[in-house]
Amino acid sequence: MSAALPLPHRGWLFDLDGTVYRGEALVPGADATISALRAAGRRVAFLSNKPLQTRADYAAKLTRLGIATEAADVVNSSLVLARHLQRLDPGAPVFVIGEPPLVAELSAHGFEVRGDPRVRWVVIAFDRTFDYAKLDTALRAVRQGARLIATNPDRTCPTEDGEIPDCAGMTAAVEAVTGVNVEIIVGKPSPIMLHVGLERLGLPATECAIVGDRIETDIVMGKRLGLATVLVLSGITRAGDPRIAEIAPDLVLPSVRELLLT
Amino acid sequence: MSAALPLPHRGWLFDLDGTVYRGEALVPGADATISALRAAGRRVAFLSNKPLQTRADYAAKLTRLGIATEAADVVNSSLVLARHLQRLDPGAPVFVIGEPPLVAELSAHGFEVRGDPRVRWVVIAFDRTFDYAKLDTALRAVRQGARLIATNPDRTCPTEDGEIPDCAGMTAAVEAVTGVNVEIIVGKPSPIMLHVGLERLGLPATECAIVGDRIETDIVMGKRLGLATVLVLSGITRAGDPRIAEIAPDLVLPSVRELLLT
Repeated sequence: MSAALPLPHRGWLFDLDGTVYRGEALVPGADATISALRAAGRRVAFLSNKPLQTRADYAAKLTRLGIATEAADVVNSSLVLARHLQRLDPGAPVFVIGEPPLVAELSAHGFEVRGDPRVRWVVIAFDRTFDYAKLDTALRAVRQGARLIATNPDRTCPTEDGEIPDCAGMTAAVEAVTGVNVEIIVGKPSPIMLHVGLERLGLPATECAIVGDRIETDIVMGKRLGLATVLVLSGITRAGDPRIAEIAPDLVLPSVRELLLT
Repeated sequence: MSAALPLPHRGWLFDLDGTVYRGEALVPGADATISALRAAGRRVAFLSNKPLQTRADYAAKLTRLGIATEAADVVNSSLVLARHLQRLDPGAPVFVIGEPPLVAELSAHGFEVRGDPRVRWVVIAFDRTFDYAKLDTALRAVRQGARLIATNPDRTCPTEDGEIPDCAGMTAAVEAVTGVNVEIIVGKPSPIMLHVGLERLGLPATECAIVGDRIETDIVMGKRLGLATVLVLSGITRAGDPRIAEIAPDLVLPSVRELLLT
């Protein structure tokens, strides 16, 4: 069975939170849409700014929700940061303001993750274990010449219990005490993340579409690199948002379910 | 005995760290200078942006170092914040990003210090126990309408082991995740702190002098309110600093010792 698809693109990048699922619940129809894309020979990968879980965790969650996925098809900000830093400064000693899955990704990419300030980079991420001692180590590291790189620019992360502080809180604290700005933020809307996604699909930007719920990240980033863009209204961005007319995604749909019906 | 004093002012406000002592060591001659001022009938009080100890702790430290002082002669940012907020919103429920001495000062001034987000103010201070849970509570409080007030604007605090993160780190984290700016910072260089110091001396600004080691806080604040200003080079500001010529303190001395000898 091959359902009607509104766009001819061979590669599809899907945001996760707010697009494919909300918390622990699948967005209704997301499984059928992705199934149909795959059945039609389209390539699919998933993008997330969240560094809190491993790619294997995200893949397991998608599989559990009915979208069979392997870890390699998940591109999150931990992976993108590790890849990008690997090009800039392979094997560098780093101090991490982040959770164990990010540390594991950096170790897997050959970085020397240290608990002291004798490092070349301070990696800043969404970190629910952030505390004063980490801020102090970051300050000492920067005073000794370390540079700053962060996973994602988000202020808050939506959860079922409301918003919680995201990476921008940790970044701002480090910038304020050091007086030094973060040099690189790899997550959306940075093209760095999108390039890793396109690399996974193995297709040029013009043959790909990106589907997401945040107009200021998913859609802006996609437009900037020449992908087709699909805004879904199942997450953060609301129908009445004035930026929709201004930024003009190629499609605006209630949710990914309507990708099949349009 | 009444030594020669270079300025006729009846009231004297002294910064502490870098001016009267450095860490645990008295600045040589600070005891003799303050003794001479008191012997000449001048009134003396001490100003500090640090909310980490109680005023009684600072008084005990000064007394131990040879400058007999009572708690009432110490004006720190905890006291100034408690007094200021008492005028704005007496008895308000508050959430505190800060250490126990600040909490005690707020309780002593009649505020209801809470551990949850159901508050009218989030009080932000230099807090070596700052962590993600506090940042999260601050975010929830602001989402429910709480306002932001902070003790001091300093990026870092000098210690014998180097600089450590100060209040600006906590403030920046809260501002970044909430998207809301702190309304009031009571510590130096805010005139709010200086007013509390002048109140303690019971003298108008024109009859008072301020002595401090930070040109951008102690001296700028003193000039703004019309006090005589004495910059000492025993702390942060260095002799070659181009701001000295620009801001033009009334006196620039190697340390408080030279107040007696000038």
